[in-house]
Amino acid sequence: MYAITIPEPGGPEALVWDEVPDPVPGEGEVLVEVVASAVNRADILQRQGFYDPPPGASPYPGLECSGRIAALGPGVSGWAVGDEVCALLGGGGYAQKVAVPAGQLLPVPEGVGVRRAAALPEVVCTVWSNVFMVAHLRPGETLLVHGGSSGIGTMAIQLAKAVGARVAVTAGTREKLDRCAELGADILINYREQDFVEEVGKATDGAGADVILDNMGAKYLDRNVRALAVNGRLAIIGMQGGVKGELNIGTLLSKRAAVSATSLRARPLEEKAAIVAAVREHVWPLVAEGHVRPVVDRDVPMPDAAAAHRVVEQSGHVGKVLLIAP
Amino acid sequence: MYAITIPEPGGPEALVWDEVPDPVPGEGEVLVEVVASAVNRADILQRQGFYDPPPGASPYPGLECSGRIAALGPGVSGWAVGDEVCALLGGGGYAQKVAVPAGQLLPVPEGVGVRRAAALPEVVCTVWSNVFMVAHLRPGETLLVHGGSSGIGTMAIQLAKAVGARVAVTAGTREKLDRCAELGADILINYREQDFVEEVGKATDGAGADVILDNMGAKYLDRNVRALAVNGRLAIIGMQGGVKGELNIGTLLSKRAAVSATSLRARPLEEKAAIVAAVREHVWPLVAEGHVRPVVDRDVPMPDAAAAHRVVEQSGHVGKVLLIAP
Repeated sequence: MYAITIPEPGGPEALVWDEVPDPVPGEGEVLVEVVASAVNRADILQRQGFYDPPPGASPYPGLECSGRIAALGPGVSGWAVGDEVCALLGGGGYAQKVAVPAGQLLPVPEGVGVRRAAALPEVVCTVWSNVFMVAHLRPGETLLVHGGSSGIGTMAIQLAKAVGARVAVTAGTREKLDRCAELGADILINYREQDFVEEVGKATDGAGADVILDNMGAKYLDRNVRALAVNGRLAIIGMQGGVKGELNIGTLLSKRAAVSATSLRARPLEEKAAIVAAVREHVWPLVAEGHVRPVVDRDVPMPDAAAAHRVVEQSGHVGKVLLIAP
Repeated sequence: MYAITIPEPGGPEALVWDEVPDPVPGEGEVLVEVVASAVNRADILQRQGFYDPPPGASPYPGLECSGRIAALGPGVSGWAVGDEVCALLGGGGYAQKVAVPAGQLLPVPEGVGVRRAAALPEVVCTVWSNVFMVAHLRPGETLLVHGGSSGIGTMAIQLAKAVGARVAVTAGTREKLDRCAELGADILINYREQDFVEEVGKATDGAGADVILDNMGAKYLDRNVRALAVNGRLAIIGMQGGVKGELNIGTLLSKRAAVSATSLRARPLEEKAAIVAAVREHVWPLVAEGHVRPVVDRDVPMPDAAAAHRVVEQSGHVGKVLLIAP
């Protein structure tokens, strides 16, 4: 088969479409013939040499895919060759075939084509595990999403609205905020022109956000804590604004608030399987009913992954950038 | 009645035993004739002028008491005049009488005298709400308790052992560590001579502590995060080591860990009542069965509260220092 390889870390041109050996599904795994994968920020870090795949994972980038089951490894039940699926991956989605632990498979949801289903696994699992399983967003509460027009952001808006929460978003342009509004966002904040702590305060009668989903890390830490409501929960999933930040414990304590930080890729198989099972139970019906849909910015042929990385690095997209396998 | 008043904030001598008007129980409150109260660090801050009572609370210090119900306010059911009780207070425990919302009352538990019951409400409610309701300590997990010989510490050791967890403690002397060991602590760390991150690591095969109960705040923040296990939870309940500390979000994220901070006093009545109800359900049977007992350092006559404050300020105690009403 062919896959995107990274002979030397570097810029987008470091991504090389090359012939490689086919993966072989191990115990409890299935082989998926890939229809599409999608770009995640972690792929860019991996390309740059800053984020090695975890032990045992495929060396090729790609944390999610959609496609059809081509073969079952030993000990797999509940799936059949030919099933249309999408999957959370430890790596290897930028390829024509990938071996996947069966616990990380999801059926292509009703009403979504197999190609567009590649836009779902990472964002749905990330949002569900953080906003709902860790931070327990409840109906009537307010969620603040940073980067509302990103893949994660567009999914967080839809899921939070689907469960009856109010949603505030930050983004850097009017056009991106308009797209967030179309998806249901209630409070639109242009971070280049407005202070999100102040805007969230104004929109909530001074109460603040019950849950914040953050990809900025250190740069936003103090402001995020200030923007939290009493009993608020800050869920950090990225560190685009740095790793070490000052935490005002006095503010946190006076609000009885909490800060969590997680990543999906490093989780052990059983935790990934538990998240995937929860997504299938709670989110897939919302997709089938049309309350939640994949938001796709564009399709890019997989051999041209470099072009897709350039789009994401320049934040020129809304939702997910797909890579279509030839 | 008489109560400890604070005419001017200051040192222990600022505590003045003086005649004051009797409190009158409002809607949903009972009047308790106080047998004993106990010293908490928040009382010292209040004496120094750094911690005003929340709106509506008694102006006198004292966050807990034991005694007998002397009168029922309007709308109280389930309690009778003469009942022996202990109670979580918003203030006013350093007095001969105090008005208490009925949701904050607990019966004096089986096997504990009414006087010693004054040692229970704050520590039991603080430990239960943080270690169990927020941080969800589970059987088989490891809890690290800073200040293991304090009132909070001695209760945290007992409760964690009673549910089948392993307990590490820090303290500043051999004698205090010995007392922690008698209460069941498994891993004893002298913070003056040892590095708790290293010691917890050694004792857990490098895994770290699943839950940390911390009273130091900023000074320990970075080390606490380093001492956490994967999926670890740091629960901060005090800031004796400062308010603002550096949080390494990268470490937190790689461990999928969380930091929470709470205080009991500022919680609204319904949250306090929920904690008290949980304590009555989950902790009171452990006390009745003898698995958990109040740890009392000494009894001090209430008019001499200044002497009791000096003991606590010099950390010369193990467990709680009681104030006995005349």
